[in-house]
Amino acid sequence: MIIVMKPGSKDSEIEEISGILENAGLGIHISRGIERTIIGVIGDKRLLRDIPLELMQGVDKLVPIMESYKLAGKTFKPEPSIIDVGGVKIGGRELVMIAGPCAVEGPDQIMEAAKAVSRSGAQFLRGGAFKPRTSPYSFQGLEEEGLKMLKEASNATGLQIVTEVISERSVEIASRYVDMFQIGARNSQNFHLLREVGRSGKPVLFKRGSATTIDEWLNAAEYIMSEGNYNVVLCERGIRTFETATRNTLDISSIPVVKSKSHLPVIVDPSHAAGRAQYILPLSRAAIAAGADGLIIEVHPCPRCALSDAAQQLDPAAYDALCKDIGKIAEIVGREFRYGA
Amino acid sequence: MIIVMKPGSKDSEIEEISGILENAGLGIHISRGIERTIIGVIGDKRLLRDIPLELMQGVDKLVPIMESYKLAGKTFKPEPSIIDVGGVKIGGRELVMIAGPCAVEGPDQIMEAAKAVSRSGAQFLRGGAFKPRTSPYSFQGLEEEGLKMLKEASNATGLQIVTEVISERSVEIASRYVDMFQIGARNSQNFHLLREVGRSGKPVLFKRGSATTIDEWLNAAEYIMSEGNYNVVLCERGIRTFETATRNTLDISSIPVVKSKSHLPVIVDPSHAAGRAQYILPLSRAAIAAGADGLIIEVHPCPRCALSDAAQQLDPAAYDALCKDIGKIAEIVGREFRYGA
Amino acid sequence: MIIVMKPGSKDSEIEEISGILENAGLGIHISRGIERTIIGVIGDKRLLRDIPLELMQGVDKLVPIMESYKLAGKTFKPEPSIIDVGGVKIGGRELVMIAGPCAVEGPDQIMEAAKAVSRSGAQFLRGGAFKPRTSPYSFQGLEEEGLKMLKEASNATGLQIVTEVISERSVEIASRYVDMFQIGARNSQNFHLLREVGRSGKPVLFKRGSATTIDEWLNAAEYIMSEGNYNVVLCERGIRTFETATRNTLDISSIPVVKSKSHLPVIVDPSHAAGRAQYILPLSRAAIAAGADGLIIEVHPCPRCALSDAAQQLDPAAYDALCKDIGKIAEIVGREFRYGA
Amino acid sequence: MIIVMKPGSKDSEIEEISGILENAGLGIHISRGIERTIIGVIGDKRLLRDIPLELMQGVDKLVPIMESYKLAGKTFKPEPSIIDVGGVKIGGRELVMIAGPCAVEGPDQIMEAAKAVSRSGAQFLRGGAFKPRTSPYSFQGLEEEGLKMLKEASNATGLQIVTEVISERSVEIASRYVDMFQIGARNSQNFHLLREVGRSGKPVLFKRGSATTIDEWLNAAEYIMSEGNYNVVLCERGIRTFETATRNTLDISSIPVVKSKSHLPVIVDPSHAAGRAQYILPLSRAAIAAGADGLIIEVHPCPRCALSDAAQQLDPAAYDALCKDIGKIAEIVGREFRYGA
Repeated sequence: MIIVMKPGSKDSEIEEISGILENAGLGIHISRGIERTIIGVIGDKRLLRDIPLELMQGVDKLVPIMESYKLAGKTFKPEPSIIDVGGVKIGGRELVMIAGPCAVEGPDQIMEAAKAVSRSGAQFLRGGAFKPRTSPYSFQGLEEEGLKMLKEASNATGLQIVTEVISERSVEIASRYVDMFQIGARNSQNFHLLREVGRSGKPVLFKRGSATTIDEWLNAAEYIMSEGNYNVVLCERGIRTFETATRNTLDISSIPVVKSKSHLPVIVDPSHAAGRAQYILPLSRAAIAAGADGLIIEVHPCPRCALSDAAQQLDPAAYDALCKDIGKIAEIVGREFRYGA
Repeated sequence: MIIVMKPGSKDSEIEEISGILENAGLGIHISRGIERTIIGVIGDKRLLRDIPLELMQGVDKLVPIMESYKLAGKTFKPEPSIIDVGGVKIGGRELVMIAGPCAVEGPDQIMEAAKAVSRSGAQFLRGGAFKPRTSPYSFQGLEEEGLKMLKEASNATGLQIVTEVISERSVEIASRYVDMFQIGARNSQNFHLLREVGRSGKPVLFKRGSATTIDEWLNAAEYIMSEGNYNVVLCERGIRTFETATRNTLDISSIPVVKSKSHLPVIVDPSHAAGRAQYILPLSRAAIAAGADGLIIEVHPCPRCALSDAAQQLDPAAYDALCKDIGKIAEIVGREFRYGA
Repeated sequence: MIIVMKPGSKDSEIEEISGILENAGLGIHISRGIERTIIGVIGDKRLLRDIPLELMQGVDKLVPIMESYKLAGKTFKPEPSIIDVGGVKIGGRELVMIAGPCAVEGPDQIMEAAKAVSRSGAQFLRGGAFKPRTSPYSFQGLEEEGLKMLKEASNATGLQIVTEVISERSVEIASRYVDMFQIGARNSQNFHLLREVGRSGKPVLFKRGSATTIDEWLNAAEYIMSEGNYNVVLCERGIRTFETATRNTLDISSIPVVKSKSHLPVIVDPSHAAGRAQYILPLSRAAIAAGADGLIIEVHPCPRCALSDAAQQLDPAAYDALCKDIGKIAEIVGREFRYGA
Repeated sequence: MIIVMKPGSKDSEIEEISGILENAGLGIHISRGIERTIIGVIGDKRLLRDIPLELMQGVDKLVPIMESYKLAGKTFKPEPSIIDVGGVKIGGRELVMIAGPCAVEGPDQIMEAAKAVSRSGAQFLRGGAFKPRTSPYSFQGLEEEGLKMLKEASNATGLQIVTEVISERSVEIASRYVDMFQIGARNSQNFHLLREVGRSGKPVLFKRGSATTIDEWLNAAEYIMSEGNYNVVLCERGIRTFETATRNTLDISSIPVVKSKSHLPVIVDPSHAAGRAQYILPLSRAAIAAGADGLIIEVHPCPRCALSDAAQQLDPAAYDALCKDIGKIAEIVGREFRYGA
């Protein structure tokens, strides 16, 4: 943390601040420039948290030097984390594929989807049972019934299950059926829920919010981790920009940026980023090429029949073609993807 | 809803779609242009909700003609709504002022704040007891203890209380103490929580999310209203843009836009928009001039001592000056604000 | 400028950088923290311009402490600038009003517009003769013929003329007819053109680009001023965001922010910000309330007949009503506006 | 074009609009819904350009059905365009590589850069002679001297030259030396300059503006093409968003989106998108994987010595490694890149 003083700040002001910092147990370095004086603060910035330095006489602004997250950062853990979900490893050499419909709609649909994605290659089955929809009049999910159907599909195929949770109650119910929780973009700063899944100890697929910076995303991951749950997998799914040709703007650069700042794995959701099935293949290729640890793709046995997000779900044939492709790009970037069951 | 067909779409494709629409109980109008055919759909769009028209053969895109919210819209209720909270009316001729500290920090602080804002003019006391903070290591609020302190301050001053809720449990606890719930920007699409406050029946101050369009904001308000709770007051608090000179970019235009689309009152939060105390007065003036129904302002008896958001809280003297000012602008735009207790 | 070293940077790296800085004539202050060392650089930052410090061994990042503009900043000139255009003063107590049609369409149209806006109160007539339009197939302006019509309307009413220039040639031609150049948002970082109007010496109304931060805007103004032309008036006209209900998002906060960083006057263009006539009155009120030095408003004798931007032009009656209103708000914020010719 | 009438619009209003459209030579289709009437307009939308329909009595809004660009669109030319620049083909099976320093700094620097990039594989040499810089106090380019140095480097290596032009005069001078003009992001809506390079007939590398939608980008390309110059190559270089970890946000989805709307080739500039050398390799891989027709990369013989954009230039060794990589990804997506001179 650096404190930049206003031009013409007084010695008494600088001394007052220095005194406060020293009382808080922090070291200081004063540097007097021609127009301005700056004060470098040395020590654990968290000691400063509740001192409103920006309001002290003579202070112009504060410049943070270090990130405010700790457990999610590379300083805390320089080597990449590998998250183990029921024996499937996320963040290692092998890419992971999470696939399945937007929402669980019935036992046949989810079973069919599970078999299809398992056949082409996938370690996880996705499927929403609790759906946050923009309009309250849209289909909201089958809740516990849906979770049971997911479980049956998992039993039949050996796929791990990931599903979105949206409240304390849904965490409690879902914890009985699923292998990994998903936190959706709309709840990406619902800190209450983040703590809740943190306390559960179960692995969490944590989506970036559509207006969340990478720094805020890692700070939010810190909410989960500070409860002792280090099994966090980040998921880039596009941010909101002025461009309307796609549902969101996939921030492809976030992959290498996250890799340079954090040890957590990061996977990409091209379905929600693009919002249209026709763009999913090129975006999936790009994500793997940029270094993603895996993909989460919406696949429906019959997209035309889907109760939600119909336009962005792949059919099993398109998903199969995608899986074949991904393996080839994986090799070039030093990764591996096993096509087929 | 209008369906735009691809150039060269076939008669059989148009007939297939027409058949589906008619089976769903909808009327159609087919218009054949030189390059394209369009199909106008007549009737209640909600009948279409689960038909994935964009995936039908020959369809290029769908163009919505009407909004997807209903209860929040002017078609449903053309005249402005006035929300009554314990006898205080929001949305009428008189402007409302909600003021108080970012967070409740202790009995003296909140009592002092309440007395100060009541003296200058305010109908509501604000103060956070459950604080969603970017970092898990920041102060998170006094919870129920804080609510009790708010209640005492309310008893002493006659101010109504508004406080943020962040979970089912906080709704349940807060409902015993406060007059109005606040939903913060980070929970603006936490639909589970919106339904919860909808079911409570208590008035809701509903902040816009930092990446939420006005249409999505009204759709989210619909979640509260569709539970039978029509006592919703919208609150503009700035959106996220590329500009970093302010914490958020206050979308001043949202005031007249909301007024043209919805009957709900809208108030403005210049404190969170600006993020710096020095910009609060000009933004407050602008908000009232643009037609806002009131303001919510952070006021702390001693901003330098604040445990959160120190840089953006006014001291009582600055708040007093602001109140004097607001009354004068109110008159010019045909409103009224009563300065003083 | 502060140089933040990587964790574990070596003494030799720090010495190498220190040597380079000292050779460039700069002072340094080294501050060794627990995890990181930072180097404060003292002296004229421009000496550093061509030293790629961020690429030196051991450097993590650079943190600028001061702005890169100089002539446009308050450090250079703390008191507000008043720009004199043919005797009309912009930035003083009195507000300025610039009004007229989007484009000059013919002698009668512009004469009628000039008389109407002069009648209600305006010091400047606007009207485009060189129009940058999104599509090449739209009306592009009457060029020199249009400037002659503006001049005649000016002679008849005594209004000063402001018109947009888009190229060297248009600067040369327009300089014979107009009192003030306008640089439009699309050319806000066309530095070649900025230098050109800088060299002309004529006052410049300089619009912010739709994706330009306030800092970049002031840096771009510096291009004009560094050619010796200090007669720059800034114009906020909305920035591009994800919100589509308005054509742009008026950044109302930019008014107090600019006032805190620069001595240049700032006026507001609610017509281009809103894009719809119905929002112009509330946004104009808000701009004056927030401290703007004036407004630029599109007024057409017959908006329905306009060849461009029809939806956002006021008719003379609506403009007249707006002028009456503005004067009242002006008083409250310590300004003045003279309604009527 | 569809005209949506307000609820309760009158027959007389609908008739008035119908009359105007028919007089303009357009066909109409009226569709009366339960709440609203819509009017479909059939025929060449350009006949409508100067009719302010949105201001007619009873009109609520206009909904465009087709794009406003024509020559740049796929309807005009469904098969992909291949642009020939001195025998090098852009948009065919073979990927193109444009490489070289940000700015030409001297004869040795540009010769060394040219030899290095030619060795690893490149068909074009880039290098700025006219530099638009954010601050007027930064290095602005060697102008004609720089162009001569580029020409010598081209003669020695056989590379084609592409350089940025920023004004009529620079177009005139550069046309004597270079093979392809570049229009930079800051001039992406400088329509005057676009027409100028359109008239020149020389191939144009046309960068997207940082706040330009894909539709606006194609409309701006139309300015070049409507002058008869169809040799336009689009270049995605990142858009401005709230994320600050990278200089811009590379809109990777723009590649498949452009491919679905336009026949023009599109190449990607990862250097300006990322702003940091360390992210260039993953973004280059992603761009090729997503279907780009080539890359433009900043390469400097000694990035640490660069006079501009030092942080984002690769050294020859890093560029060489990138070229080796690209060829392998190219194959997987059905393309080809020839590594080595």
